[in-house]
Amino acid sequence: MNKTPVTLGMDIGGTNTVFSFIDFEGNEIKGDRLPTRSHEPAEELIRRVHESIESNFKNLAGSYELKGIGIGAPNANYYRGTVEHPPNLDWEIVNVVALMKRYYDLPVAITNDANAAAIGEKIYGAAREMNDFIVITLGTGLGSGIVVNGELVYGSDGFAGELGHTIVEPGGRQCGCGKRGCLETYASATGLCRTVGALLAREMKDSRLRQVAPADLTSKQVAEAALAGDSIALTAFEETGRCLGMKLADAVTVTSPEAIFLFGGLVKSGKLIFEPSRKYLDEFLPPMFRGNVQLLPSGLQDKNIAVLGASALVVRELEKKGNA
Amino acid sequence: MNKTPVTLGMDIGGTNTVFSFIDFEGNEIKGDRLPTRSHEPAEELIRRVHESIESNFKNLAGSYELKGIGIGAPNANYYRGTVEHPPNLDWEIVNVVALMKRYYDLPVAITNDANAAAIGEKIYGAAREMNDFIVITLGTGLGSGIVVNGELVYGSDGFAGELGHTIVEPGGRQCGCGKRGCLETYASATGLCRTVGALLAREMKDSRLRQVAPADLTSKQVAEAALAGDSIALTAFEETGRCLGMKLADAVTVTSPEAIFLFGGLVKSGKLIFEPSRKYLDEFLPPMFRGNVQLLPSGLQDKNIAVLGASALVVRELEKKGNA
Repeated sequence: MNKTPVTLGMDIGGTNTVFSFIDFEGNEIKGDRLPTRSHEPAEELIRRVHESIESNFKNLAGSYELKGIGIGAPNANYYRGTVEHPPNLDWEIVNVVALMKRYYDLPVAITNDANAAAIGEKIYGAAREMNDFIVITLGTGLGSGIVVNGELVYGSDGFAGELGHTIVEPGGRQCGCGKRGCLETYASATGLCRTVGALLAREMKDSRLRQVAPADLTSKQVAEAALAGDSIALTAFEETGRCLGMKLADAVTVTSPEAIFLFGGLVKSGKLIFEPSRKYLDEFLPPMFRGNVQLLPSGLQDKNIAVLGASALVVRELEKKGNA
Repeated sequence: MNKTPVTLGMDIGGTNTVFSFIDFEGNEIKGDRLPTRSHEPAEELIRRVHESIESNFKNLAGSYELKGIGIGAPNANYYRGTVEHPPNLDWEIVNVVALMKRYYDLPVAITNDANAAAIGEKIYGAAREMNDFIVITLGTGLGSGIVVNGELVYGSDGFAGELGHTIVEPGGRQCGCGKRGCLETYASATGLCRTVGALLAREMKDSRLRQVAPADLTSKQVAEAALAGDSIALTAFEETGRCLGMKLADAVTVTSPEAIFLFGGLVKSGKLIFEPSRKYLDEFLPPMFRGNVQLLPSGLQDKNIAVLGASALVVRELEKKGNA
């Protein structure tokens, strides 16, 4: 009997590490979730992951064949196979690919979650027919994966594609990366809340958001207030879309993609974020570029993009080797 | 006797069209220059070019074999082989590649001059060993050619790589492209002169540049004034480098190149432009990117980059086909 080929997609987060076996049509066969335990050494996590993979794959081994392992992780370097100074883990520099290869004689590839999401969009999502597109993840921060000529842009050092750290406002808001004025401090769930804070300070209008402590404010609350007509919340979305649209226009001017896909928590606010983003994207594009690029929700918005993207990463590697 | 293979590199400008036969080491064998006559139809230019190519190649045909033709032209589209609404020619949309193929059954490729310069840098210049780099041409405008994963970024429509039209200042200086605040209105020979004008209006300091009508001011005069210690001229270079460095930081954050090469008239001012550009590039990069990227003068700065770049474009096509 021919076994169905599957890949393992794994996402290492600050709190949990999740993985799934995924077939080449993008269906999740089975998966598991482990606590990452960020204070433990990476060796220990990979040891526990291996145990869990083995116990989960036991009943599948008769019907499925594991072909490769793809990993999404913060600050992951595709070229070196490493995770380097991840913000939420006590790891310094760890070669996660080498650790996995202790257990598996299979292709193993790693990249950051936004790059994985972009490859996921190409292999399983709405960008299957596209060679030039951008995926933006709008969560706590702003991640981006950029595909040019059908290939992910890793850059000379494996860390390219950080649209979240391009400059919106020289000397502006403090960013976790160490500089000021980065796009993700304006266009992200966190950025939206910071914009609310700035607007509440600047304007005197009534707003239900004045009742919420800045530390407690969520993008969901801002979206709810906007839908209820709160003008501070509406202006905050408008300004978020303005910053995002302006920097997306820069990215389009440089890479001229067919489409930009938005993914993540903030995208759930729908037209609140899409309408101003589209308007300002258009406004800031050179006339010759206008109307050529679509701004769309991710084709994987309701799926487990973390494991699908990680899986897609190694599917892409297998394709390059002519094994898929 | 084996003939030496050569390509023809041709650059179509608003005033003149130049071409050279170039061997695969990048040596110019012979060339010619024709008036472009921008009011005449493109067919007529290509007819005259063909005549000139034939008469120039007559004496070479015994020793050299023409393998392909590369063309640099304003608003050229690599995918379609067209020149579209060129700013200095009365052409609307012309398929220049098809016109050349009437005369030559050879590979013919076209792109804009900045993209050609980038390919020239890869084939004949200082980027031979690099797969990720950017070439910036600082002339009347600011052109850019971006190489990612060893391939030029043409984008989905063939017009990508227009770093000159990313936004420095929303609502800022009027640009020929139809919008405001584009990088090339600040960082180019023209941009430098506009900055001088703005500084003369803002400051009350003495400056020899107050004696020059804005329409007559050249970047060379600004450079001479700066070298003589004129503080307005020095500040203008500083501000030009600040705008350039800030937007190069964005480009590095997105594409993470090994090096950025500067080319063109403004580069002759040497450290006047390099020092502030390097300083602000570093300042606006996320800390993890700092020190990874070199800002260098083009390896072809003293050569005929227009024809070398155009030649390199078709050399690259021949390489892809395995003919070179």
